Amino acid sequence: MQYCEMSKEELLTLKNELDKQYTEAKAKGLKLDMSRGKPSATQLNVSLGLLDAINSTSDLTAEDGMDCRNYGGLDGIPEAKKLMADMMDTTPEHVIIYGNASLNIMYDQVSRAYTHGLLGNTPWCKLDRIKFLCPVPGYDRHFAITERFGIEMINIPMSVNGPDMDMVEEYVNNDPAVKGIWCVPKYSNPQGFTYSDDTVKRFANLKPAANDFRIFWDNAYIIHHLYENQQDTILDIISECEKAGNPDMVFEFASTSKVSFPGSGIAALAASEANIADIKKQLTIQTIGHDKINQLRHVRFFKDINGLNAHMMKHAAQMRPKFEAVLEVLNTELSGLGIGTWYAPRGGYFISFDAMQGCAKKIVAKCKEAGVKLTSAGATFPYGNDPEDSNIRIAPSFPTPEEMAQASDLFVLCVKLVSVEKLLETK
Amino acid sequence: MQYCEMSKEELLTLKNELDKQYTEAKAKGLKLDMSRGKPSATQLNVSLGLLDAINSTSDLTAEDGMDCRNYGGLDGIPEAKKLMADMMDTTPEHVIIYGNASLNIMYDQVSRAYTHGLLGNTPWCKLDRIKFLCPVPGYDRHFAITERFGIEMINIPMSVNGPDMDMVEEYVNNDPAVKGIWCVPKYSNPQGFTYSDDTVKRFANLKPAANDFRIFWDNAYIIHHLYENQQDTILDIISECEKAGNPDMVFEFASTSKVSFPGSGIAALAASEANIADIKKQLTIQTIGHDKINQLRHVRFFKDINGLNAHMMKHAAQMRPKFEAVLEVLNTELSGLGIGTWYAPRGGYFISFDAMQGCAKKIVAKCKEAGVKLTSAGATFPYGNDPEDSNIRIAPSFPTPEEMAQASDLFVLCVKLVSVEKLLETK
Repeated sequence: MQYCEMSKEELLTLKNELDKQYTEAKAKGLKLDMSRGKPSATQLNVSLGLLDAINSTSDLTAEDGMDCRNYGGLDGIPEAKKLMADMMDTTPEHVIIYGNASLNIMYDQVSRAYTHGLLGNTPWCKLDRIKFLCPVPGYDRHFAITERFGIEMINIPMSVNGPDMDMVEEYVNNDPAVKGIWCVPKYSNPQGFTYSDDTVKRFANLKPAANDFRIFWDNAYIIHHLYENQQDTILDIISECEKAGNPDMVFEFASTSKVSFPGSGIAALAASEANIADIKKQLTIQTIGHDKINQLRHVRFFKDINGLNAHMMKHAAQMRPKFEAVLEVLNTELSGLGIGTWYAPRGGYFISFDAMQGCAKKIVAKCKEAGVKLTSAGATFPYGNDPEDSNIRIAPSFPTPEEMAQASDLFVLCVKLVSVEKLLETK
Repeated sequence: MQYCEMSKEELLTLKNELDKQYTEAKAKGLKLDMSRGKPSATQLNVSLGLLDAINSTSDLTAEDGMDCRNYGGLDGIPEAKKLMADMMDTTPEHVIIYGNASLNIMYDQVSRAYTHGLLGNTPWCKLDRIKFLCPVPGYDRHFAITERFGIEMINIPMSVNGPDMDMVEEYVNNDPAVKGIWCVPKYSNPQGFTYSDDTVKRFANLKPAANDFRIFWDNAYIIHHLYENQQDTILDIISECEKAGNPDMVFEFASTSKVSFPGSGIAALAASEANIADIKKQLTIQTIGHDKINQLRHVRFFKDINGLNAHMMKHAAQMRPKFEAVLEVLNTELSGLGIGTWYAPRGGYFISFDAMQGCAKKIVAKCKEAGVKLTSAGATFPYGNDPEDSNIRIAPSFPTPEEMAQASDLFVLCVKLVSVEKLLETK
C-alpha cells in the first residue's frame, strides 16, 4: 500500500512502530560511512601489483627513448598516452597526461579560461557574467570549482538518457554567457545513467552562442562496470564533435583514480589539436611535466586496454555485492510504497535515491543520528541546494557488503519514518 | 695582458689565431649540451634505490594511520611534512606537501593571487598594474610565470650577498603595486650566491606598501652543496619574518627534483599559519590531494634529514668534477684578460659568466655553431632581455667531466674571439 493512501490513524500506528525500530537501531551503535566514493582497503589490494611494476632494476626508458627519471616529456610518455587514449576511446594525439588526479585538470581548465581565455577568446575574468549548465543531480566537486570562480550555475534535469537536451540547446545556442557544462556522461555521478547516442550527438551538434563554450566531459567512470556482460557503452565525444564541425568544443577528462590508487594514479585530458596546442603552451609555463615514472609504472602494470578491462573486473567483483546489497534492501523494503525512487546502475560508484519532496535532509540527519554517514543532502546540486530537498547519494564502496546491508536497513527505516512524518504534516 | 690594452695590430693577429682555432674546433663536430640544469643519467643512478623503497608487501600506512593508497591527506602525510620541513629548516606545521615539482606551486600561488587574492586582498586581476621585483640574473621560469600574468618585472641587481636591498626596500616599502619578488636565496640560479644574514634580515623587516606583498623564496638548492666541508648556510626566512612581525610575507618553496628524480619527486610549500589555512581552503577545491605513496616512498628511502644530506653528497661527488672542470678552464684561459668575470659557487647547478658588454649573444651563437649548446643569452633576465647582453649561464650537470672540459675549451675560445671582435669595432 502506498503511504500516501494511508489514513492518519494508519500513519500514526506505522510511525509508532517505526519509532520503536529506530530506537532499537540507534542502540546498535553503528558507525558506517556511505558518504564518499572511496574504495575499501580490500578493494585497493587488487592494485598492489602496481607497486612491483617498477623497481631499481627496471628499464626506465620510454618508447621514444626518453629517460623517465629526468626532465622532459611535458605531455606524457607515448605509451601512457596510448593507454589513456584507449581508455577514453580516442587516439593518443588528442591526449595530454597529467598528474595524480583529473580534478586538478578541470580546475586548471576553468582557471586558465578565467585568467587567459580559451583559444584567443576574452579571459572570463574580464567578463561581467559567466554561466555553466549543471545537469542535476551531479558531482559536488564540479560545482565547487565553478562556484569558486563566481560562475553562475544553472540546473539542468537529468533523465536516464542524460541531461534535458532541449534545455541544453536552448541555453547554449542562445546565451553567449553560457561557457560550459559539467557532464559525467557514463555511469553518471550519482545516478549511474549513461548518455544515449542521441544525447551525445546532440551535444556534438550544439551551435554555441559563445565561441569559447566548452563541454567538460568528465569520463570518470568510463571503464567502471559492475558486470562483465551488462555494460553500458557511450559514443566518443571527441570524434562526434569533429564530425559535427565542432572539434574544439570539448575537454574530456579521465584518470586511474578508481582503477589503480586514488591519489597515486595518472590522469589525462583529451581534446582537439588546437586545444592541445593551446594547453601545452600554458603547461610550459606551469610545470616541468608530470611524474613519468608513475606513468611508466601504470603502463608496465596494466600493459594495455585489455589489461585495464580485466583489472576493472576485479574491482567489479568487490563492488557488485555492495551495490546488490543496497538494491536488495531498497527493492524489498521500499517497492510500492511511493516514498522514493532509485535506479540500478550497471557501473560507477553510486546509487542515487530520490525521496519525497522535502525529506532528504531529514533522512540524512536521522541516519547520522543512528551512526550511518551519508553525503550531505543537497551536495549533488549547485550551491548545495536541492530545490526539491529530495536527492540522496549513496556510496556503497567503502563498507563491507554486510555493513552495506546493515546501513541500508537503517536507511530505509529512516526513509519510512521521515516520509510518514511528512505525510502526517498534511493530514 | 688585458685585451683592452692591446693595439689594433695585436688584436688582429690574435683574431687570426683564434679564427684558426675556431675552424679546427668546429671540425671536431662536438655535440654537447650545457643549457639546462639537468642531472646526467649516471647521477640519477644514485637515486635508484628510491624505486625499491615501496613494493606490494610494504606497510602503506602513514604515521597518522592514513592508508596512503586511498583518498585523504590533502596537505601531505606527517612524515613527509617533517622531512621537507627539516630540509627547509622550518617546522611541519608550516608545510604543505604538493606533487612532483615546486614550479607548479609557484604558478599556483601567482594564479590564485590573480584570481582570488591573498588573505582577503583584492584579486590581482582586478588591479590595473602589478609589479614584481626580479633579482638578476635569475631563473627564466620564474620570469615566465609573472610575464604570463602580465605582471611588470623590475630588474634588481645581484651581488654576492644577494639582491640590492636598498633598491628592494625602496620599491617594496613605497610602491603598493609591487606585490612580489622572486628569490633563489641559496646557491642562486645562476650565480651560486647565498644571501647573507643581513640580506635575509632586511627581507624579513620590509615594510611593504602592499598588504599582499609576498617574497617568493624558492629554496631550490637548499641542500645542494658541492662540498662536504665548505657549505653555505642561510637563515630561516619563515622564523625571521615571524620575529619581524611579518609572518605572512613569505612563501617558501622546495622540492626533491634534484634530490631524487626530476619529475618524480615531491615538492613543498612553507608559509605562515594564516597563509597555510588560506591555501588549504583553495586546495580543497582544486585537488583531492597529492601522491601519498610517492611521499611515503621518499620518506622510506631518505628516512630523515641526515639521510637526505648523505644522499646529496653522492650527487656532489658527481657534480664537483664537472664544476671544477669548467672553473679550471676559465681560470687558466681567461684570468687576467679582462674579458669576463665568474664565481666559483659552493653549491647549486650553475656557473654564471659575465662577458664584456654586448658579447653574450654572439658567444652563445658561436658556441652553438661549433656544437655546444648553452642557455640562450638573455634567458636569465625578465623578458629574455639582458640590457648589458653580458650574462651567460653555464649548466655543467648533464655532460661528463671530460665533455665539460671540451665544452669549456670551446667556450673560452668563443669568449676570446667575440671579445676581440668587439674591441676591434672601436679601434
